[in-house]
Amino acid sequence: APVRVNGFVCKNPMEVNADNFFKAAALDKPRVTNKVGSNVTLINVMQIAGLNTLGISIARIDYAPLGQNPPHTHPRATEILTVLEGTLYVGFVTSNQPAPNRNKFLSKVLNKGDVFVFPAGLIHFQFNPNPHKPAIAIAALSSQNPGAITIANAVFGSDPQISDDVLAKAFQVEKNTIDWLQAQFWENNHN
Amino acid sequence: APVRVNGFVCKNPMEVNADNFFKAAALDKPRVTNKVGSNVTLINVMQIAGLNTLGISIARIDYAPLGQNPPHTHPRATEILTVLEGTLYVGFVTSNQPAPNRNKFLSKVLNKGDVFVFPAGLIHFQFNPNPHKPAIAIAALSSQNPGAITIANAVFGSDPQISDDVLAKAFQVEKNTIDWLQAQFWENNHN
Amino acid sequence: APVRVNGFVCKNPMEVNADNFFKAAALDKPRVTNKVGSNVTLINVMQIAGLNTLGISIARIDYAPLGQNPPHTHPRATEILTVLEGTLYVGFVTSNQPAPNRNKFLSKVLNKGDVFVFPAGLIHFQFNPNPHKPAIAIAALSSQNPGAITIANAVFGSDPQISDDVLAKAFQVEKNTIDWLQAQFWENNHN
Amino acid sequence: APVRVNGFVCKNPMEVNADNFFKAAALDKPRVTNKVGSNVTLINVMQIAGLNTLGISIARIDYAPLGQNPPHTHPRATEILTVLEGTLYVGFVTSNQPAPNRNKFLSKVLNKGDVFVFPAGLIHFQFNPNPHKPAIAIAALSSQNPGAITIANAVFGSDPQISDDVLAKAFQVEKNTIDWLQAQFWENNHN
Amino acid sequence: APVRVNGFVCKNPMEVNADNFFKAAALDKPRVTNKVGSNVTLINVMQIAGLNTLGISIARIDYAPLGQNPPHTHPRATEILTVLEGTLYVGFVTSNQPAPNRNKFLSKVLNKGDVFVFPAGLIHFQFNPNPHKPAIAIAALSSQNPGAITIANAVFGSDPQISDDVLAKAFQVEKNTIDWLQAQFWENNHN
Amino acid sequence: APVRVNGFVCKNPMEVNADNFFKAAALDKPRVTNKVGSNVTLINVMQIAGLNTLGISIARIDYAPLGQNPPHTHPRATEILTVLEGTLYVGFVTSNQPAPNRNKFLSKVLNKGDVFVFPAGLIHFQFNPNPHKPAIAIAALSSQNPGAITIANAVFGSDPQISDDVLAKAFQVEKNTIDWLQAQFWENNHN
Repeated sequence: APVRVNGFVCKNPMEVNADNFFKAAALDKPRVTNKVGSNVTLINVMQIAGLNTLGISIARIDYAPLGQNPPHTHPRATEILTVLEGTLYVGFVTSNQPAPNRNKFLSKVLNKGDVFVFPAGLIHFQFNPNPHKPAIAIAALSSQNPGAITIANAVFGSDPQISDDVLAKAFQVEKNTIDWLQAQFWENNHN
Repeated sequence: APVRVNGFVCKNPMEVNADNFFKAAALDKPRVTNKVGSNVTLINVMQIAGLNTLGISIARIDYAPLGQNPPHTHPRATEILTVLEGTLYVGFVTSNQPAPNRNKFLSKVLNKGDVFVFPAGLIHFQFNPNPHKPAIAIAALSSQNPGAITIANAVFGSDPQISDDVLAKAFQVEKNTIDWLQAQFWENNHN
Repeated sequence: APVRVNGFVCKNPMEVNADNFFKAAALDKPRVTNKVGSNVTLINVMQIAGLNTLGISIARIDYAPLGQNPPHTHPRATEILTVLEGTLYVGFVTSNQPAPNRNKFLSKVLNKGDVFVFPAGLIHFQFNPNPHKPAIAIAALSSQNPGAITIANAVFGSDPQISDDVLAKAFQVEKNTIDWLQAQFWENNHN
Repeated sequence: APVRVNGFVCKNPMEVNADNFFKAAALDKPRVTNKVGSNVTLINVMQIAGLNTLGISIARIDYAPLGQNPPHTHPRATEILTVLEGTLYVGFVTSNQPAPNRNKFLSKVLNKGDVFVFPAGLIHFQFNPNPHKPAIAIAALSSQNPGAITIANAVFGSDPQISDDVLAKAFQVEKNTIDWLQAQFWENNHN
Repeated sequence: APVRVNGFVCKNPMEVNADNFFKAAALDKPRVTNKVGSNVTLINVMQIAGLNTLGISIARIDYAPLGQNPPHTHPRATEILTVLEGTLYVGFVTSNQPAPNRNKFLSKVLNKGDVFVFPAGLIHFQFNPNPHKPAIAIAALSSQNPGAITIANAVFGSDPQISDDVLAKAFQVEKNTIDWLQAQFWENNHN
Repeated sequence: APVRVNGFVCKNPMEVNADNFFKAAALDKPRVTNKVGSNVTLINVMQIAGLNTLGISIARIDYAPLGQNPPHTHPRATEILTVLEGTLYVGFVTSNQPAPNRNKFLSKVLNKGDVFVFPAGLIHFQFNPNPHKPAIAIAALSSQNPGAITIANAVFGSDPQISDDVLAKAFQVEKNTIDWLQAQFWENNHN
């Protein structure tokens, strides 16, 4: 069967069916949170092929008590998020500003039903400040393949490792601090 | 203050604050459903100015028992939807096909946590088949200003009315049927 | 031969020839109009492969006396139209408006040489009000694959049919009216 | 009244009317052709404000016997053209090719109803080979503001003039040939 | 291995390596200039496959004393240029203007470190006015496959040739002047 | 004077002049490098207003011996870079990968004339490994307003500071390490 792209759809329209636009039981169940206390379940073009070219995806995010979705960016998408359960402290940092200004940190505490926007490509996070209760959010992203870059993991947990000379100077710490950081286990909470 | 658009942001970056990306208590509360048994609460660029140019919006949809979000299109967006509570029978119709094929109707029954995609510009609906329980969904759209066109309302409830000669022939019914339809009250469930 | 897409052209530039950008005798002849009195002859990327990625297509529309191109949308294109022969009553309906406003119907009577625009994704139609003479229009669309959704056909003539429960409520009529409508023959006038 | 752009429409939706999408008697009448024997009547966003952001425009082109729409480009649009009356010899030249290949010239003789595509940004022309009869075409362009650059006029008729040293070498002719060319009257046939 | 495009990347992310984003010794050496005294070394998606979909390319341009990069356009890109060595007289011509205005020629003399922009699709050139010294520029283009159309070559050196009847009228010269021009050797300085 | 945007240019075409597309002496002189040993001189739409909507910008980057342009992202652009003088060790980290894979680090040592691509939104850096000689690069970015986010500065130097609770967990260090980092002076090397 020929691949059909651009202008043409990628599958023969007469062979398309509802399953190409559907994912069952995708976002209903709490999932085990990781080391930093979160788990992002993203439904993108890998899960639903019909999303190809359509420019959107959706995710459920589970947060353990005091868990966080740590500072990260989406290289190809803006994110809009609403809280389903619990409370989240969220924020993003604006891009570099002319001196003497610094990168601005914009944050909010979100309760159930609040909506917040993380503009495309900016570093952002969500944190569940409640020590006893989990939190749940639904987020949508403006790409069928938004990508995610967890900052700490990409910087300190890459394969192979970035030179510790470079990172020591960039982060203004001793090389052995970088070495220690690079020796940790950096577990992504979403792909 | 000057309007700043394209290339430039529309507000001076030093004056931006978190409230420009935030809407409180937007999606937490059930809202009264209308005549067809639904209510769409859309958070778009009108509610959150910071969404401008960012290409996404989010909505909560409430469905009464046996309520529906009637056949409609979004002229500028794809929609991705997940069920929070209850059950939904959803579907969309593909665009015209070469004869003798007809417009294909692709549908699914969605339960809590299922995800479904309505491709940009196609006619789609959601229906709550449960006679006793309401349903709730979260939907995201790939535009900060997706628009919504409720088919019946736009066709039979426009201001002024479309000629009944035209509609009678288009819908293969008598003119007095069109006149009767145009005399009904057509209440939009979202803007 | 390798498929070459994005960035690369889809055919080796040295093998391209004028026939890849050409369609003979495409729009000169009147064509038999259908049940609603029209026939749309669209030249898109299916007819001219060289249109791929180029974002435009062109059509001739024939209208019988009192014929119409019934209410429809193009999910991926704006349309601009000019009348070659005869008179057309044309219009489109804007997307949903905040209450108490309704969907606005904007219309014009077009004579030979007049130009009218149907914005992307909005429901529009053309009607030939002359009981004796046919009309002809040329229309262009801002996509090489604009799609067309004839409203009545997609709603009442889909395969399989949409539930009559859903449509009865959406259109505020009895189920047997829907059943009767679904039993009609819905003939598309363009793909 | 505030200017409203991006995401927002540029005019309050409640104040929009059909005249914002309409141009009367735009393309019906033959217009006087210029020195090279043609006249392009383009209906773009300057004539119909409602075209803003919608990505399309339309034109009528009149050709005198042996007249031509001389080699030109549209910097921001693909063009699709159909012949309404007469015959046209049309063509475009592909962009630079790896040596020893040269720029390929793809051409066709078009009769009434034929359709031809001129890809975005490529040099193209139309010529009426009939010494006795005029020709008429309708063309559509994939931008509301496509621009037009008549090659000879831009190169030899600019204000101020390009250095004749530069042009002499570029066109492999004597400087006095360039000076003679620059002294001619270069009349644009469309804006 | 499956081709993967749109939404999906075109190569399996796990198999990507740094060589897919790299070109060695691409822009460091002066290259022999051609008949018009220039040589454009463009690094685009043909040289670096990883550029696909990323919307940028880069070039080094060498200019002999009195050499020029003759009037040309890029059909799919804006160009931004900076001078590394020597002096350049550069300019572009705006698209057609309403009469009685003419195409405007905007020019500058650039010295080392100056930056100039050539907007997408407009005819532009660079000329080294120094009779003794070469010049070097770095230019970047807003497409991974910008294309280049050298005006004189495309008009007078195409294969096959454009009719001399057409060109004689377009350029307001005798047919034998066109024939003479078409008999010359037109050597592209970049692809 | 009216602001004119989208479709329309933002300045009256008859009032545009070459200075709107020009920046003198922008990239020729070495500039003092900062604490991390680099200085990025970016020419974007703030410096050249004519770049608006054109999707490109250019920069010169100076590197001190052992200096670096520390890990950063451009939220709205791909970057292509070539070395003018010296040697650079460069690299980027891919976005999150499915477990057990980690973020891949792709790197190269670049010499004069080499070209390297940093895909949109990915974390990347350049480092001058030579302890005695400075290095110089020219980079181009696929946006007239690409933005830059220096990772360490945005994470540890934002105003106000991000909660040390959040950062301690995200970076797997003690809170007092975060506090120490936040107390440092984080100087951006470009805006």
